[in-house]
Amino acid sequence: MKQERVSFENDYNTGCHPHLLKALEETNALFTTGYGHDEFSEEARNLIKKACLAPEAMVQFVMGGTQANIIACVAGLKPWQGVLSADTGHINVHETGAIEAAGHKVLVTPSNDGIIDPDAIDQLCRAHYEDPSVEHTVQPGMIYVSLTSELGTIFSLDTLKALRRAANNWNLILYVDGARLASALTSEAATITLPDLAKYADMFTIGGTKCGALFGEALVVTKDDLKNNLRYMIKQRGGMLAKGRLLGVQFRELFRDDLYYEIGRHENRMACLLADRFKEHGYSLYTPPVSNQIFVIFKEEDEKKFKERAIFERWAVLPDQTCVCRFVTSYATTPDMITACFSGMQEDEFHVFQKRE
Amino acid sequence: MKQERVSFENDYNTGCHPHLLKALEETNALFTTGYGHDEFSEEARNLIKKACLAPEAMVQFVMGGTQANIIACVAGLKPWQGVLSADTGHINVHETGAIEAAGHKVLVTPSNDGIIDPDAIDQLCRAHYEDPSVEHTVQPGMIYVSLTSELGTIFSLDTLKALRRAANNWNLILYVDGARLASALTSEAATITLPDLAKYADMFTIGGTKCGALFGEALVVTKDDLKNNLRYMIKQRGGMLAKGRLLGVQFRELFRDDLYYEIGRHENRMACLLADRFKEHGYSLYTPPVSNQIFVIFKEEDEKKFKERAIFERWAVLPDQTCVCRFVTSYATTPDMITACFSGMQEDEFHVFQKRE
Amino acid sequence: MKQERVSFENDYNTGCHPHLLKALEETNALFTTGYGHDEFSEEARNLIKKACLAPEAMVQFVMGGTQANIIACVAGLKPWQGVLSADTGHINVHETGAIEAAGHKVLVTPSNDGIIDPDAIDQLCRAHYEDPSVEHTVQPGMIYVSLTSELGTIFSLDTLKALRRAANNWNLILYVDGARLASALTSEAATITLPDLAKYADMFTIGGTKCGALFGEALVVTKDDLKNNLRYMIKQRGGMLAKGRLLGVQFRELFRDDLYYEIGRHENRMACLLADRFKEHGYSLYTPPVSNQIFVIFKEEDEKKFKERAIFERWAVLPDQTCVCRFVTSYATTPDMITACFSGMQEDEFHVFQKRE
Amino acid sequence: MKQERVSFENDYNTGCHPHLLKALEETNALFTTGYGHDEFSEEARNLIKKACLAPEAMVQFVMGGTQANIIACVAGLKPWQGVLSADTGHINVHETGAIEAAGHKVLVTPSNDGIIDPDAIDQLCRAHYEDPSVEHTVQPGMIYVSLTSELGTIFSLDTLKALRRAANNWNLILYVDGARLASALTSEAATITLPDLAKYADMFTIGGTKCGALFGEALVVTKDDLKNNLRYMIKQRGGMLAKGRLLGVQFRELFRDDLYYEIGRHENRMACLLADRFKEHGYSLYTPPVSNQIFVIFKEEDEKKFKERAIFERWAVLPDQTCVCRFVTSYATTPDMITACFSGMQEDEFHVFQKRE
Repeated sequence: MKQERVSFENDYNTGCHPHLLKALEETNALFTTGYGHDEFSEEARNLIKKACLAPEAMVQFVMGGTQANIIACVAGLKPWQGVLSADTGHINVHETGAIEAAGHKVLVTPSNDGIIDPDAIDQLCRAHYEDPSVEHTVQPGMIYVSLTSELGTIFSLDTLKALRRAANNWNLILYVDGARLASALTSEAATITLPDLAKYADMFTIGGTKCGALFGEALVVTKDDLKNNLRYMIKQRGGMLAKGRLLGVQFRELFRDDLYYEIGRHENRMACLLADRFKEHGYSLYTPPVSNQIFVIFKEEDEKKFKERAIFERWAVLPDQTCVCRFVTSYATTPDMITACFSGMQEDEFHVFQKRE
Repeated sequence: MKQERVSFENDYNTGCHPHLLKALEETNALFTTGYGHDEFSEEARNLIKKACLAPEAMVQFVMGGTQANIIACVAGLKPWQGVLSADTGHINVHETGAIEAAGHKVLVTPSNDGIIDPDAIDQLCRAHYEDPSVEHTVQPGMIYVSLTSELGTIFSLDTLKALRRAANNWNLILYVDGARLASALTSEAATITLPDLAKYADMFTIGGTKCGALFGEALVVTKDDLKNNLRYMIKQRGGMLAKGRLLGVQFRELFRDDLYYEIGRHENRMACLLADRFKEHGYSLYTPPVSNQIFVIFKEEDEKKFKERAIFERWAVLPDQTCVCRFVTSYATTPDMITACFSGMQEDEFHVFQKRE
Repeated sequence: MKQERVSFENDYNTGCHPHLLKALEETNALFTTGYGHDEFSEEARNLIKKACLAPEAMVQFVMGGTQANIIACVAGLKPWQGVLSADTGHINVHETGAIEAAGHKVLVTPSNDGIIDPDAIDQLCRAHYEDPSVEHTVQPGMIYVSLTSELGTIFSLDTLKALRRAANNWNLILYVDGARLASALTSEAATITLPDLAKYADMFTIGGTKCGALFGEALVVTKDDLKNNLRYMIKQRGGMLAKGRLLGVQFRELFRDDLYYEIGRHENRMACLLADRFKEHGYSLYTPPVSNQIFVIFKEEDEKKFKERAIFERWAVLPDQTCVCRFVTSYATTPDMITACFSGMQEDEFHVFQKRE
Repeated sequence: MKQERVSFENDYNTGCHPHLLKALEETNALFTTGYGHDEFSEEARNLIKKACLAPEAMVQFVMGGTQANIIACVAGLKPWQGVLSADTGHINVHETGAIEAAGHKVLVTPSNDGIIDPDAIDQLCRAHYEDPSVEHTVQPGMIYVSLTSELGTIFSLDTLKALRRAANNWNLILYVDGARLASALTSEAATITLPDLAKYADMFTIGGTKCGALFGEALVVTKDDLKNNLRYMIKQRGGMLAKGRLLGVQFRELFRDDLYYEIGRHENRMACLLADRFKEHGYSLYTPPVSNQIFVIFKEEDEKKFKERAIFERWAVLPDQTCVCRFVTSYATTPDMITACFSGMQEDEFHVFQKRE
């Protein structure tokens, strides 16, 4: 039966972490003012600024990730500018052209691992400015990079610094989409911290939805001239929640006792466990399993077998007709769910096609 | 002290109705798929279609009212069209130009009571099509009307029918913004029902945020060619909630046992009580108190007195320098709050200036 | 017969001034580079900067007035800002929502004479910034004012200075649409010169289309941070002419020997003559006849009589059912055309209805 | 000296064909109504419809190619749709993001010869509709293909039919950008005629600017529901010329006695001659020389030599560091210019590097 399959479909298929639910219950009957001017939001903003070691930063909460990306791009770009992104970037492939609908081209560079290459940025910008008909092409204005990436990968502090240098060289805004930042910051491979992001990026988001909240992203802005008027932009783009306190209450909880990191570590531990089990059974991973998304390479028969036990997405079909399947863990994933994923499978059912070859 | 004042600031300054909170708690740990494809959302959609007597309608949930308005306008308008609205309409004054940012002009007509006049629509459209340079002006494409209006008023079934006729005459989409629909439908003055809206409007929203939910609006579409592809539009405009079930769970609760109507009636009762108290003390109301927003005319000294006891908004300053103050009730308003609003005021403190005159 | 009627329909119903035509012929076979990088354009830009006493200004040519207005608004406004305009402003009524299609609201203030009132700007801006929910409304970002106005009026140097003060007070860009600038600068009532515009406005256009050219507007930008990147904006909005030299050749001619002023003076003289004739015959003018557009008040029967002799537009119908008709003169208007407008009319045919009253 | 070099920079570096200039002179003093409602425009529209064997088509003139592309895309696409283009397509690379500024993503497919592959369209559309999260990606809505392409190539009638089939299969508008259509239709390799375009495309342009006119493109629309309201779109996007007759006069001339074809043939003949000369001297062409743009592969030293004699653009640098240079012919190109391009070069100066290898 459908309900009995364990779900690794994504990290937004339950409600929220019990601590957040409790906080929402406890504050439910209180009267506050709207639109994020409440005390919970204020406290949450302060906790985030403290965690970022960035007392001067501006923090604003919005409801969802697409909204955050739209707002960041519109606020950061001039009308004739575009945003640089890896071809796999969420803004390029999975937001129904939201950035273009807001008037801006996504300038893509190819990427194998989901992370935009600082050298590719240099090349693209140099080519732009060397073109004698420079004004006939879109001016690069912003770098978009997601952490973790859409392929579950993370980039290093060195890469972050290189992106900053590229941004400085070409007068670009550096924006980091942290929809899954909890997982990225607590990865065993992580070299980037929240204060690093605050130091090197001009804007970034701290994702709530995929990190244990019901919904919500914190948009952190460190570049001064992007701070003013940001709330106009949020309101105009439909990102300002009337009951803004809901975001405040949740982010306060996430950042009060490092729950955000705890959730990230849990997600990663579960993903690691799952990856190990796949590897034990001889499966290859498409990208290194460093965060809460793991990408397993299946032959079609394998996929079918696992589909009987678990819910997950097919991500891509490779040229050799094997397919890449994505398994995502969340605050709600348990070791039992991982066991269930492999339950009752006979040893000879694993990796059926590979073995025969 | 600030906290001790009772709040009539708006209808979104608490969490949600206890029944909804309970339902969110009970379903919190369940795994479902995302983006509104879950069973709760499906059930909620069906309940709404049933309540509308509109089995063929399309129902989609979005996070907020500005989003709903953007999506409705972009989905319903051609690129060269504008949306007709009373000058007081929310899309014209309080959404930071969201409709224009989506490419469309708001074509305003003056209104005293917050409701667009069907005759004014006729005139504006006739003038447009009689202009020999017709293509030099924005083509009217949609009627926007809010129920209740931004001035707390409601319109009658006759007006709804007249709007439908105007829409038919001039090939306009008729869209009703029902952010406060619970209050409108249950007003003692109400002549419009949900099935009426489904019958006469092409699109309308059933507001959740201001009617007891944490957040969320149901967008109901009855016109066939607006149904297809609506979800693309919702996603593109940042209105599609990853944990879409949160909307499903809440609207299921609102429409399972007529809780939506119960909340509306409660809001209206409290508003009535409050209006009566003001009238008893000799205050005039700016618009008839038929819904959960009442607009009291104060001299500045009156406003000050009440500000000591209650939180409310100054809406406008009239030419005679009196000011119009808005008091809003919600599912959480209690009779005690109304009492507290007048508590300890001596008889001679009421309406201080008027009396002296 | 249609062709025999003299035309006062507008100032763009012939080709171009013979001097310009000659210059186009003489340069037709020469090879130049495109997009305004040619020597004619360079020379024209220099002549204009000289005429403006503004060596630091940036001058760019675009094909038409709507384009110029779009480009000015998009270049000068932030995404959350709107442009202030008199309700009669061209951008508000006769550009099919071009500004909104570019994402910006036109914030209108009522005007009787087609000129935005500096005090109304102050009030609107003050109201905006005093609103505690400031970010829920569109931020004023630019002043749009046309010279001459759409009602044929012009404003004084004092008003220009007052607009500059308002712009400074509220951090607004001041943009002057000079589609009919030749007429405005050479009006007998004129107190504003080109150098004044360059001194007090941040951007303005010097209209070609309605001042003797085949087409084309010169966009003059004096504010430094609006200069950079303007050509990107022009290209993106379809305003960059491949054979840009056509604009250069024409504007060079217009500004080489003060032909621009000569054309303006001719237009105004013809308009004056026409106005005098109407006044002689007892007609009232809706606005003072200070430029090349005059607005005559007709009863319907009058309009009919004149329609037999001349082509002109009905501009508006007044509450008393008289109508305002617009007569426009151009470089091509001759005294004979004015005579023909009244030719063969018996004295008792003039102003037929008024006399009977 | 700069002026003495012959120019193959592009096909818009002179004025217009003498016949057009003469017609503009002859009609210059006539009074007509504006915005394309004049008799010249009417006649030109009829001539074009006749040449297309498409009496039911709608023909509208706009000032430039970028405008035409913006208008076609906005008119043909729904807000959630994107336009399919070869990666080399003009709308993708050389219009400063004009299409995105109008709200639409350009969905690119790789192309070696500048022509979008009908099979690639099929694949992209199939992948879109097979995606279970279909609404998270941009819906394909239109095919953009240029004829001639940006690489000087042309496609066959078979390809046009295949594009039509793809359009039918996936409910796409088929739009052909004919900025250089004169050259394409008269190419020795041509298999497509104007009536073919009218039969298989939903919209296409007949370029004037690059085919002997001062400026202007005819937008031909054959699909019924794209015809209505198109003029609103043209006005809104700044594409409606006040003195619209200038477009009418020119296109009337181009289509009265097949001058359009004559110009195309001349352009092609000159290009052929030039290509032959390059081939004689051992140079390779990057794409087949079938139209008025030819792309020669140079080593840097070759480029330098030719730069002394001619003006042309470097188009691209190939991986082996040779560069592709573009030579464009126009109605004004003469055999003498071609001779001059090679004048005084010693035999051993040609292809200097290749020979040494």
